[in-house]
Amino acid sequence: MAGISWDDASFISVHGRPIEGVVAKLQRATKVGIFTDEENSPQRLAARLLEFNACDYTAILCENLCGPDERLRRFSLEELSLVTDVSPLNVLILEKKANAEPRPALLDLVPEEDYGKRMPKKGLITKKEVRVLSIAAMALREESVVWDIGAGSGSISVEAGRLASRGEIYAIECDAEGIEFIEDNAKSFGMDQIRAVKGLAPAALEDLPRPNAVFIGGSKGSMSEIVDIAAKELLAGGRLVINAVTLENVAEAHKAMKRLGWPFDMSQISISRGIPLAKKYLRYEALNPIHMFYTEKPLSEDS
Amino acid sequence: MAGISWDDASFISVHGRPIEGVVAKLQRATKVGIFTDEENSPQRLAARLLEFNACDYTAILCENLCGPDERLRRFSLEELSLVTDVSPLNVLILEKKANAEPRPALLDLVPEEDYGKRMPKKGLITKKEVRVLSIAAMALREESVVWDIGAGSGSISVEAGRLASRGEIYAIECDAEGIEFIEDNAKSFGMDQIRAVKGLAPAALEDLPRPNAVFIGGSKGSMSEIVDIAAKELLAGGRLVINAVTLENVAEAHKAMKRLGWPFDMSQISISRGIPLAKKYLRYEALNPIHMFYTEKPLSEDS
Amino acid sequence: MAGISWDDASFISVHGRPIEGVVAKLQRATKVGIFTDEENSPQRLAARLLEFNACDYTAILCENLCGPDERLRRFSLEELSLVTDVSPLNVLILEKKANAEPRPALLDLVPEEDYGKRMPKKGLITKKEVRVLSIAAMALREESVVWDIGAGSGSISVEAGRLASRGEIYAIECDAEGIEFIEDNAKSFGMDQIRAVKGLAPAALEDLPRPNAVFIGGSKGSMSEIVDIAAKELLAGGRLVINAVTLENVAEAHKAMKRLGWPFDMSQISISRGIPLAKKYLRYEALNPIHMFYTEKPLSEDS
Amino acid sequence: MAGISWDDASFISVHGRPIEGVVAKLQRATKVGIFTDEENSPQRLAARLLEFNACDYTAILCENLCGPDERLRRFSLEELSLVTDVSPLNVLILEKKANAEPRPALLDLVPEEDYGKRMPKKGLITKKEVRVLSIAAMALREESVVWDIGAGSGSISVEAGRLASRGEIYAIECDAEGIEFIEDNAKSFGMDQIRAVKGLAPAALEDLPRPNAVFIGGSKGSMSEIVDIAAKELLAGGRLVINAVTLENVAEAHKAMKRLGWPFDMSQISISRGIPLAKKYLRYEALNPIHMFYTEKPLSEDS
Repeated sequence: MAGISWDDASFISVHGRPIEGVVAKLQRATKVGIFTDEENSPQRLAARLLEFNACDYTAILCENLCGPDERLRRFSLEELSLVTDVSPLNVLILEKKANAEPRPALLDLVPEEDYGKRMPKKGLITKKEVRVLSIAAMALREESVVWDIGAGSGSISVEAGRLASRGEIYAIECDAEGIEFIEDNAKSFGMDQIRAVKGLAPAALEDLPRPNAVFIGGSKGSMSEIVDIAAKELLAGGRLVINAVTLENVAEAHKAMKRLGWPFDMSQISISRGIPLAKKYLRYEALNPIHMFYTEKPLSEDS
Repeated sequence: MAGISWDDASFISVHGRPIEGVVAKLQRATKVGIFTDEENSPQRLAARLLEFNACDYTAILCENLCGPDERLRRFSLEELSLVTDVSPLNVLILEKKANAEPRPALLDLVPEEDYGKRMPKKGLITKKEVRVLSIAAMALREESVVWDIGAGSGSISVEAGRLASRGEIYAIECDAEGIEFIEDNAKSFGMDQIRAVKGLAPAALEDLPRPNAVFIGGSKGSMSEIVDIAAKELLAGGRLVINAVTLENVAEAHKAMKRLGWPFDMSQISISRGIPLAKKYLRYEALNPIHMFYTEKPLSEDS
Repeated sequence: MAGISWDDASFISVHGRPIEGVVAKLQRATKVGIFTDEENSPQRLAARLLEFNACDYTAILCENLCGPDERLRRFSLEELSLVTDVSPLNVLILEKKANAEPRPALLDLVPEEDYGKRMPKKGLITKKEVRVLSIAAMALREESVVWDIGAGSGSISVEAGRLASRGEIYAIECDAEGIEFIEDNAKSFGMDQIRAVKGLAPAALEDLPRPNAVFIGGSKGSMSEIVDIAAKELLAGGRLVINAVTLENVAEAHKAMKRLGWPFDMSQISISRGIPLAKKYLRYEALNPIHMFYTEKPLSEDS
Repeated sequence: MAGISWDDASFISVHGRPIEGVVAKLQRATKVGIFTDEENSPQRLAARLLEFNACDYTAILCENLCGPDERLRRFSLEELSLVTDVSPLNVLILEKKANAEPRPALLDLVPEEDYGKRMPKKGLITKKEVRVLSIAAMALREESVVWDIGAGSGSISVEAGRLASRGEIYAIECDAEGIEFIEDNAKSFGMDQIRAVKGLAPAALEDLPRPNAVFIGGSKGSMSEIVDIAAKELLAGGRLVINAVTLENVAEAHKAMKRLGWPFDMSQISISRGIPLAKKYLRYEALNPIHMFYTEKPLSEDS
């Protein structure tokens, strides 16, 4: 079909489904057939790809396949976003360009500066080593639903999104500027499965779909209430991860974990990096230690 | 086709290709169409899936599609492995059973015991927090080629394999018992893209395909030679990661990194875990610190 | 007098005073004149020195100085302990033997084994680095009065005693075997200013003299009550030091410190030692981290 | 004599001896008799006490004791420094004033700011926890001779001097401003046994008396040569302590220790302090880790 080999191809459908997340799904494939509908049309899809900085595709629009009006047209995404005469019977094929930028790794130690460009309060970005361990504690799958509570600039959400490419990431943040950073980061990294949710937990969590993983990076004094809701809504087998940087938070998180009564783990993470000194030397520079608590909702607890 | 929806489906081909890695590719999908050939026949594929502990599939064998002899048959994998009358014109469709065990997460903090069952020298298994950070430093993609040098029981290979599901993992180990553990682990985790390579680096690296990531967990006194070959063979943009547990190894790894002349990072990783004490308390238990060096081959260095 | 030079000599008196602590005072001097009385006679002093393993002295007993019956006699300590005809008018001069063992350092990183010989539960001896920092946080002077609560085998008391050579060290311990170890250690290190107090704090603290420094190494669930009494009895400018090894204890100690309302410090101490590996290497071995809280009683709080 | 009780008194002599260190010796006593001579006269002694900020004494000058011209006079130190008619036959008695400032503790966790007042480059002051452990590794006695190589602002020298109150501390520093700070600190802490030595080790070590303890805080690229001389000059049973903050220095110090062939210890010291956050919280703040190597010269190596 369409003169392209189906080997290593995959299919996704936005027919009668939300368009959110379609860019992220596309990002991890090289050749995709997409079933569209009138609302989620090829044009809208092209526009969304461009909005999320995912431009390295060639589009082949296949209309009325196997019918007498069968038509195959090649477009750039820019052209496709402006096309007006699309048959409702179509399959859209997207192929990564041969010279496309390589996709980002599924997992990496991403320097703080990569997010810092969009974040004035540099010190507040979770350190790369801690980000990676927190993501690992969430035990994500491609289709995981994640709540990132106290999302800050969205670094945890972005890295969760690399793995949960077919999932949904809710980045809850009460600071208006933070919401902007999260949306900017989501766009620049091509992650349209990330949704910035402005508000304070636990109130802001009320209408969210039940998660496979909850990460609490900040609790603004409501640790206990947040943990209650997170634990209730978490799907069986899902993970709850809490990072604490103050002695007060460590005590609260510990207490909350004990109250749940599920088996839990705690790792205090202390990292020292090698930092160049006077060009010739490498000195040790310590990062502030983090206590990370994590637990898995037992299958027997499914509500 | 075959009465199943193509939404979220994908295709892979083993037609004229090595069969290694096909199980791993299948593992991350729920519905796959497979193009087989006479050697990599549906029967052989079924047998390989069973060998690698990937049993939760229903098979639909579609033969002579669109021809007058078109035939669709449903099989269990056990049945399929024994079928004798398969047309060379076929597509094999595999669907995860509805009640299948959930796939393992792409990334997790896997307890040492999960590998320890197969490894008598418990102390030698890289700790989960260090495994995760080492994997992150490798910056893996789905199709990455990995050299895991000094693979031990294969824990790093297995976790790399969760991410590099379409790649190739070479687990180099000089100890015969280690090779057995690696092969056992590969089978039990359904990772047929892992290949245990018995031998000592650097000699054992000679015939391997060029890697996207090299991890040196042990060097048996040949750090400098191993780094030379690894650096030469590494593809541009690929990563080299070295873990060191002795002061001697830290000094060697540091020297090797300096000699390469590429920008590099070092993180000393110190973890303390919370361990139950007398049922009521959680005490801090420190893990021995690891120095992790990592670097990326500059694009300009591609040989 | 007595044909010896007074340079660098010092004097102490046990006339009408408790004999406890006299050995410790002697230990840090090389030449001492002692004013005795009928109860604390030269013989009793000699016996006490022998009991506390302080044998490297020559004694000169000077009787009826400047009188017509003036008499000077040289003794070994063994001989002196048995003498029967001592005039009540006497000064006893003790001189370290020229070939005496060097006195222990005022401060040292004393290996755990040095106490372990007398302590079966090896794991429970505070690590040398932590001992030293705890002693430092107590800010001891020669004449300090110390409460060592939860004294275990007495290692903290012994090291406090090296500095507080003219002071009093109360080693409170509820375990009978622990009391034995403390008394053994006190004798073998020549520290007769250490007094083992069998009992549980806070009850066991009731009759003790007010301290310049309180160290809480164990609280058996009564942290809050112990801190209350310690804080009340502490002399103005005195120090309170609490070591915690569990998350529960850290939270309690922190809470207690906050409740006092005095400025306080906290240092989490993480040590990794270099341990020989296969004779050729030095590997890092981590000790479990300790949280040390310490505070000074404000002068304004003197009760 | 002189109407004062000799109990707890001690004697020192500056008769025919260097005056350096006399203030430090006095500081740890409350009542001292001093044998002076024409050069080290009572007046000179009084002036030295005032110079080294040790003002809390009352002086009793006893002349021609037991002779017909016996005279006892009380002075303030200021008066005494100006007296002109002193008999060569005298004993000077100094008594701490009843309301004198308490002497500093023998050992304490002294905040960096206490030295920082005199040191612009704050970051360079060894952290208090590291200072204490370094001092402990030196295993000092009252009369120890110490080389403090790379002394910076003299914080290690000052704290060594609290213990080695009858010893000699050589603070070697190549920076002129550093020398000033050292001298200022020595004066303000009343430690006239500290001698600032301007120069670079190993050259600057040549004429120094053999030490009981050598501390290397900085080596300016000459680690190996410094260790050679230090090891040679060290008295048997003496200690060598090296602190390293860069990976390069760790490797050098380790190599130097191995080359000596004496048993040695290494402790990597990682401290996290509790720092107030927004008045209500205490957050963890990590200090950069230090590798401390230390060894004792075997008795058999005495040269």
